[in-house]
Amino acid sequence: MTIFLRLYSTFAFIVLIVTSSSLSSAPAAQALDVTKATIVDLTHPIDANTIYWPTETKTFQLDEVHKGVTERGFFYASYRFCSPEHGGTHVDAPFHFAERGQTTAVIPIDRLSGPAVVIDVSTKAAEDTDYTLSAQDVSDWEHAHGKIPDGAIVLLRTGWSSRWPNKRAYLGDDTPGDASNLHFPSYGPEAARLLVDRGVAVLGVDTASIDNGPSKDFLVHRIAGAANVVGLENVTNLDQLPATGAWAIVLPMKIAKGSGAPARAIAFVP
Amino acid sequence: MTIFLRLYSTFAFIVLIVTSSSLSSAPAAQALDVTKATIVDLTHPIDANTIYWPTETKTFQLDEVHKGVTERGFFYASYRFCSPEHGGTHVDAPFHFAERGQTTAVIPIDRLSGPAVVIDVSTKAAEDTDYTLSAQDVSDWEHAHGKIPDGAIVLLRTGWSSRWPNKRAYLGDDTPGDASNLHFPSYGPEAARLLVDRGVAVLGVDTASIDNGPSKDFLVHRIAGAANVVGLENVTNLDQLPATGAWAIVLPMKIAKGSGAPARAIAFVP
Ligand SMILES: [Zn+2]
Ligand SMILES: [Zn+2]
Repeated sequence: MTIFLRLYSTFAFIVLIVTSSSLSSAPAAQALDVTKATIVDLTHPIDANTIYWPTETKTFQLDEVHKGVTERGFFYASYRFCSPEHGGTHVDAPFHFAERGQTTAVIPIDRLSGPAVVIDVSTKAAEDTDYTLSAQDVSDWEHAHGKIPDGAIVLLRTGWSSRWPNKRAYLGDDTPGDASNLHFPSYGPEAARLLVDRGVAVLGVDTASIDNGPSKDFLVHRIAGAANVVGLENVTNLDQLPATGAWAIVLPMKIAKGSGAPARAIAFVP
Repeated sequence: MTIFLRLYSTFAFIVLIVTSSSLSSAPAAQALDVTKATIVDLTHPIDANTIYWPTETKTFQLDEVHKGVTERGFFYASYRFCSPEHGGTHVDAPFHFAERGQTTAVIPIDRLSGPAVVIDVSTKAAEDTDYTLSAQDVSDWEHAHGKIPDGAIVLLRTGWSSRWPNKRAYLGDDTPGDASNLHFPSYGPEAARLLVDRGVAVLGVDTASIDNGPSKDFLVHRIAGAANVVGLENVTNLDQLPATGAWAIVLPMKIAKGSGAPARAIAFVP
């Protein structure tokens, strides 16, 4: 048995080295190697068709500073733009609905990068335009996919992004200046409280608001803001993400003291 | 030897399984697990102090739409803003200096995510304010760190970000409307050509331009634009990155038909 034990310990040692080095660089199923992942852009382009809240009187405007050949003989183009913070794919800083909440530029950068949790309510929303995600929906998701991790970027998929940029279809009403008759699905307050309890970093949705269309008291915004949870609205391409296993990155323009900002949201899919 | 071979093959098989599974999920030294990396924000906040090109007559402006308690009893804040595309930490789309180059929103998303190559010329720039990165500097970097990979995000460190937001120190001159007497370091044309040959995706720098201050013909911009290579200007915190091994992500606001845009640039450091 001596030779067996000696061989055993030699090979066990090799196995141990290889195993522990692979564990330290890529643990469990949660590791995500960016060098191999596919990137999905969750962002609508910003242009004159970008949808803003109906009470917003200004929309995105791009003004030419120069476009053409300069006197030195080379082509040069440059523009200026004006935009509300809240429209298109954008972030709601906690300060948007919480006076002491974080403003856009001071949201900790590692709260803008996290495991993507995609909750699909598109079937329910197709039957009920004003559908709100329930605490039961969250529990059902966890039963199927495991507990929602601390720092998660939750992406609620309602299917509404296919209606973009048809303002009437997307918001339920396109009467200028009137936000009293909107219809679209989103988070419900009980689900928002449960997700905040889980320690999520971002509540994202493929509709115009993290509260549903008929909401007048914006409870989800207030629950999120009070907990320094970031909102992310008007995302797209959620149909290209798995329920779990992707990694999301949400990078708003770094507006100092802003209540939000246009953002680029992407996901790395393994 | 029979027992030896049987044991050997058993353990070799185990070693093989463990090795190949670790290789497929985290190959070589280049793999980067986002779930374990530290994030460095390479972005200056945008505010009234943000530095724009001296000939730019407008600067960043944030206008309050609402800030305070609403008639329904909860706090609510919202702003609009106006900004030139080119100022602060921002992207130059290839179209900026190339009529047929990509505009901001159509830059392929996987060209905005890549291995960070940090080239440090801060010592040379401290001695020569107008220093330009040479082809020899690039070769020296490759001799020390290996060939610059296809799709790299090159980040040229001059040390200039410590001068931000002192416009005179950062640009070399703060005369409004006058860009004829600027002084700061950046890329040189020969280095830019070599980097374009390597297939890099982004040329980034911690000064105001990917051409140096005295440049009047903007050759680096034109070389980059013609090759659909993206520019990234006014980055910061490059002193927190290793020369190689980090992963950069550069996400501009998705302005349709833009020549550039304010961007958030970050790096994952293993
Ligand atoms: Zn918003
Ligand atoms: Zn620029």
